[in-house]
Amino acid sequence: MTNPKLRAFIPLFYLVWSDDLLTPKEFLTLREFISLQNWLSEKEKELLFAEVNVSAPPSRGQLIDWKSQIEKIIQEKPSVRSIFDISIRLSENDKAIADLGPAFIKLENDLGILDKEVIGVFKTSSNIITSNYQAAKRFDTEILARILDGKQAFIIKKVKAIISRPEFAYETSTDSDVYREKVYDWCKILAKENFGNMAYPKKYGGGGNLADYFSIMETLSYHDLSLVIKFGVQFGLWGMSIQSLGTEKHYIKYLKDIGSLKLPGCFAMTETNHGSNVKELETTATYNHDDQTFTIQTPNIDAQKEYIGNAAKHGQKATVFAKLIIDGNDYGINAFIVPLRDINGRVLKGIIIGDCGLKMGLNGVDNGTIRFEKVVIPKENMLDRFASINEKGEFESPIPSDNRRFFTMLGTLVGGRIGIPRSALAAAKSGLTIAIIYSDKRKQFGPEGGSEVSILNYRIHQRRLFPLLAKTYAIHFALQYLTNRFINKNESEMQEIEALAAGMKAYSTWSTRDTLQECREACGGKGYLSENRIDTLKNDTEIYTTFEGDNTVLMQLVAKNRLSEFRKSFGEMDAIGIINYVYENAKTAISEKNLIITRETDEEHLLDAQFHLNAFRYREKTTLASAGKRLKKLIDGGLEPYDAFNVVQHQMIDVSQAYLELIILEQFQTAVQSIKDKKCKDIVSKLCQLYALSEIEKNKGWYLEDGYMEGVKTKAIRKMVNQLCWDIRPDAVSLVEAFDIPKSCLAAPIALH
Amino acid sequence: MTNPKLRAFIPLFYLVWSDDLLTPKEFLTLREFISLQNWLSEKEKELLFAEVNVSAPPSRGQLIDWKSQIEKIIQEKPSVRSIFDISIRLSENDKAIADLGPAFIKLENDLGILDKEVIGVFKTSSNIITSNYQAAKRFDTEILARILDGKQAFIIKKVKAIISRPEFAYETSTDSDVYREKVYDWCKILAKENFGNMAYPKKYGGGGNLADYFSIMETLSYHDLSLVIKFGVQFGLWGMSIQSLGTEKHYIKYLKDIGSLKLPGCFAMTETNHGSNVKELETTATYNHDDQTFTIQTPNIDAQKEYIGNAAKHGQKATVFAKLIIDGNDYGINAFIVPLRDINGRVLKGIIIGDCGLKMGLNGVDNGTIRFEKVVIPKENMLDRFASINEKGEFESPIPSDNRRFFTMLGTLVGGRIGIPRSALAAAKSGLTIAIIYSDKRKQFGPEGGSEVSILNYRIHQRRLFPLLAKTYAIHFALQYLTNRFINKNESEMQEIEALAAGMKAYSTWSTRDTLQECREACGGKGYLSENRIDTLKNDTEIYTTFEGDNTVLMQLVAKNRLSEFRKSFGEMDAIGIINYVYENAKTAISEKNLIITRETDEEHLLDAQFHLNAFRYREKTTLASAGKRLKKLIDGGLEPYDAFNVVQHQMIDVSQAYLELIILEQFQTAVQSIKDKKCKDIVSKLCQLYALSEIEKNKGWYLEDGYMEGVKTKAIRKMVNQLCWDIRPDAVSLVEAFDIPKSCLAAPIALH
Repeated sequence: MTNPKLRAFIPLFYLVWSDDLLTPKEFLTLREFISLQNWLSEKEKELLFAEVNVSAPPSRGQLIDWKSQIEKIIQEKPSVRSIFDISIRLSENDKAIADLGPAFIKLENDLGILDKEVIGVFKTSSNIITSNYQAAKRFDTEILARILDGKQAFIIKKVKAIISRPEFAYETSTDSDVYREKVYDWCKILAKENFGNMAYPKKYGGGGNLADYFSIMETLSYHDLSLVIKFGVQFGLWGMSIQSLGTEKHYIKYLKDIGSLKLPGCFAMTETNHGSNVKELETTATYNHDDQTFTIQTPNIDAQKEYIGNAAKHGQKATVFAKLIIDGNDYGINAFIVPLRDINGRVLKGIIIGDCGLKMGLNGVDNGTIRFEKVVIPKENMLDRFASINEKGEFESPIPSDNRRFFTMLGTLVGGRIGIPRSALAAAKSGLTIAIIYSDKRKQFGPEGGSEVSILNYRIHQRRLFPLLAKTYAIHFALQYLTNRFINKNESEMQEIEALAAGMKAYSTWSTRDTLQECREACGGKGYLSENRIDTLKNDTEIYTTFEGDNTVLMQLVAKNRLSEFRKSFGEMDAIGIINYVYENAKTAISEKNLIITRETDEEHLLDAQFHLNAFRYREKTTLASAGKRLKKLIDGGLEPYDAFNVVQHQMIDVSQAYLELIILEQFQTAVQSIKDKKCKDIVSKLCQLYALSEIEKNKGWYLEDGYMEGVKTKAIRKMVNQLCWDIRPDAVSLVEAFDIPKSCLAAPIALH
Repeated sequence: MTNPKLRAFIPLFYLVWSDDLLTPKEFLTLREFISLQNWLSEKEKELLFAEVNVSAPPSRGQLIDWKSQIEKIIQEKPSVRSIFDISIRLSENDKAIADLGPAFIKLENDLGILDKEVIGVFKTSSNIITSNYQAAKRFDTEILARILDGKQAFIIKKVKAIISRPEFAYETSTDSDVYREKVYDWCKILAKENFGNMAYPKKYGGGGNLADYFSIMETLSYHDLSLVIKFGVQFGLWGMSIQSLGTEKHYIKYLKDIGSLKLPGCFAMTETNHGSNVKELETTATYNHDDQTFTIQTPNIDAQKEYIGNAAKHGQKATVFAKLIIDGNDYGINAFIVPLRDINGRVLKGIIIGDCGLKMGLNGVDNGTIRFEKVVIPKENMLDRFASINEKGEFESPIPSDNRRFFTMLGTLVGGRIGIPRSALAAAKSGLTIAIIYSDKRKQFGPEGGSEVSILNYRIHQRRLFPLLAKTYAIHFALQYLTNRFINKNESEMQEIEALAAGMKAYSTWSTRDTLQECREACGGKGYLSENRIDTLKNDTEIYTTFEGDNTVLMQLVAKNRLSEFRKSFGEMDAIGIINYVYENAKTAISEKNLIITRETDEEHLLDAQFHLNAFRYREKTTLASAGKRLKKLIDGGLEPYDAFNVVQHQMIDVSQAYLELIILEQFQTAVQSIKDKKCKDIVSKLCQLYALSEIEKNKGWYLEDGYMEGVKTKAIRKMVNQLCWDIRPDAVSLVEAFDIPKSCLAAPIALH
């Protein structure tokens, strides 16, 4: 194209034929435009038409030539900001072209070409912000690691050293039998290190240190989770059931051998037909006055014990939960020690063991079914802390109500609801460590002509991982708090702590589920390869949302507990009055601030810890009062309470969620305040803000519905969440390094530098 | 307690000592109350105090006696509605007691006792709504199954018959080698049935029926998903790459053998360092003028082909994507047939195969890595539909731009983005069938004294499963639509269909991920056992969100496509003008209706298909215009377009989501309209309403932020979603039975009647 003014069309031609896939319609648009240009001769038009003929595309060389002409212009004058600028220069500042500005721009619009976007295609810009962003060392990860470990730093270090030893190399066989034996052997090593009996009283050979026990559970969870569950079944469920439900004679007889793993055992509560509703277990323990024994019996196949860890292979004894029957009367659920196998591992008469077979995960744990056919055990095998049979063969208990006794027994076993979420937390930390280190290294796509960009620089990728990272930190501090409360509890706090443990178990295990799911996807194909361990982490922890109490059931329990606390604390008024009071009061408190607060969007306010706390508190109070009010209304309207509770189940989840999030935020903020190192404090404080704001964002529908916030504010919060993610990005790798997970445990090739 | 007036306290005593765990504080409250009753003598008070002494609880027998006294009163007068009523009757209508009403009620409140809730404990009510609800046959599942199958009913039936045969019994070995061979054998059987070549042109021995091919993929997915992927790799990716990118000579030479599985092959595109950004693949194919050959070379270890199906074990040839180099010039990515193994399965010289090893799922597929060390192939092995090398050794192509040519090539392979979501759909149907049948049978908890209740009667359980059931139906019809559009496409629709396929692939596979996750949890412990297959379904489909295009990347692509369409369709005005126009116009259109619509909550309106469609359309338009506006503003503000796109990534997901949901709803509504059978139409129409409303509920934050709805309306929608779930419950089992999944495929013991 030697005619300079025709060269003005080169950028459009190039764009039409290059990456942007134009449709025949757009070609037509371009041809029409050309035919309307009266300043062109027919011959010139023909020349131009020839370049936009769908059936006769330009050669590849032609395209390259056009591109280089355009690039030359841009090199000469980098300030060029529009396609039309290029056209003018290509036409050598032709007068006729210069007048065509509006027409050209209209044409570009008709073709859907965004001027500045396209210019980028030709420029190799060095100042792309997204490209130039990277990980940085802005705080001391060792200091942060020490903060996270707290007082348990010593035991945590010890556990890490042991699981990093060569004999703890991961089992790679897909044969469950091999895997189960390996896990069993690992447990024996840990028992030798006195990890198993850590929580048992010193008097009976234990370490007397519950705090250390929980830290052991959590730290072991950086390694194999089958190991953790096998360990928990043996030393936690089996051993603690003796410790919590038995008496001196049991402690003396069993605790030492359980702690040393000389006596492997089971916790046999769940039955096929009764998992959540264990109050209705059907296995019976019938007292025989003649010889002072019990006969343990499985009345029907659906009453067999199911999913019992340690049952399929190794368990020699089990704590069996069964209905106590004396003289034909049912005395409710009690616990009994029942032998399953002899010391050589041979199953005893009357015991029928089944193997649960392959599971989604945790295949290193030998879960099985147990049926009892007239199994006779001596009287002393009844765990008799809360109920016993006297010499006359009569039932005795300090707790007269069978249900209440049973729930008191269950209450003593709440430790499992602390161990499990802490194990889940560790799994989430492992997943995030793998995903964030990989995402920092992995590069994909980039600006035209520039190098590819770390995928962790993409906003959407940050959005996927960083709120979960913040949540994981949040849960860390909340579980520390829960553990401390549990260890230092007194009688009057038990109900509150039990509810909190139930809720934190659900919240934490769901968070781990979500986190590992996101980590899997964030690592793409690499996240699907077993060598990178996200599959195992996800599949092993999958059942955490079910065992130790189904999460959905637990959330209902937490909400019921909250409702009952709520009723008690407003005893002065009648029920409707109370609810209206709290509800309206909360509303009023807000509407006073309404005009300012609901629309306030300045950065200082949005990042203010007090604003976060107020918002969480408000939600906690309001969901609770509102559920209570609704329930009352339904029952007053004639609905049976059972039906009414069913109707509000959905709201009950909100009540628990809001309660747990409030506790978690409070503890997170408290933890931030206690950090002395300024740099660590700054970054953890950012995580705390991110946790608060991303939870608010998640619940924005609720806040808007309620009128606590207006759209302008929730939109500003969304932007702030994006901004915080961006701000945290350089620290993200350091933040997972502060989890200080042994490299041999992490193991994933994609996570090793 | 012989003194009748003291017996008025029995209900309170019973409650205090029974299930409700009261704290010491509440015992104190009760004691204080007693001491304040001046009408009681000191001796009477002592008697009462004795019953509320924490350290001297009543006997178990005492508790049972109290309970039976209360129950007797209720039996005599079932209309009793309050605890105080019982107290009066127990006191034999004592005058002093009758006056105590307000004091007693205050006491109950102080103790947190909810009157009517507690009464339920004593009554075995026969009219508990939750208990009396169950599955019913309200429509003909066979008619609905026929509607779902549509025109492909014949082939679907044929596939089901074959995968139900004994030789298709699931492989139970955990040894990948055994599993891989089994899957390979299954593929051979299917090839014999002419399923593999179903989509190839009749001229080359195929069935010429693309619609049937997709139905085969979907129906096979009720069986083993490794089989489906192996099948798809061989006949879809490998075979279709020949068909789409090759020419006559290739069709003649290869298609027959590929279709019969005589020639197993691979589709080797992805490299370790380039998965999503395949434009930057590094493998080279260098043209040798001398002997008219290409040398295929892997330049570095991170440029090896990775995750390639059929590579580790069976593939004899592969379609390899590589940069074509002629005389040192890079001509972009092209495709070449490269032999990997001889017919005896021996790996050829220069080919280095790795095994991807164990994966999260799909372990019946032999994914591997491939490296090329100076592998020489003849010129005719270039798949030359879109580019070729002429006799002079020059590059020739009808598409001048390298990128555009590559994306055109990729466009021809879009079929995979229809096959995968359809396979994902089938997996979701399997999961829902298992979970819903089990949840209908599984009973847990129940009203006091009544029998246990099907967990599918619990509102929260319905909430977990039914919106996903509705969504699965929605996706079914949308994928039928996509398939039809694809099969009957013309050139000008290609971009739209490609974007739609990309979007539907992401939407459908994410939905399957969520559905199977929920199904796993909804089945509790049973859902964790491999025998019930939810683990396999979940783990096998897990990678569906990654392969055939990472979902997050695809959603960005869809949004970019939407933005560019949007720009084109408003070419008449300048860019800012357009966006403002659309945006404000939409706002205005709404605000006209504002006062009525944003607050309208009557049932007829909420269930109205037109309301749903308007809401979805509004969201689609507004998110698009708003993202466009934001992008323009950022670029005008000086941000490089690349950075600007990064900033709005989060919004881009919204744009795609809203677009896809609109298409899905439109197709769902159209499908409902076309159903002739009244009963089927009614239930599918309910599912359509549930889909629409639960999506609106999910996006309620957005609708509220925007002002399209007010809180009163979104709250009403939440209730309506609950109501629809409740209404659908009796049909839920029938609705999954209409999927008509062969029992041998379903296999899960918990799903078999």
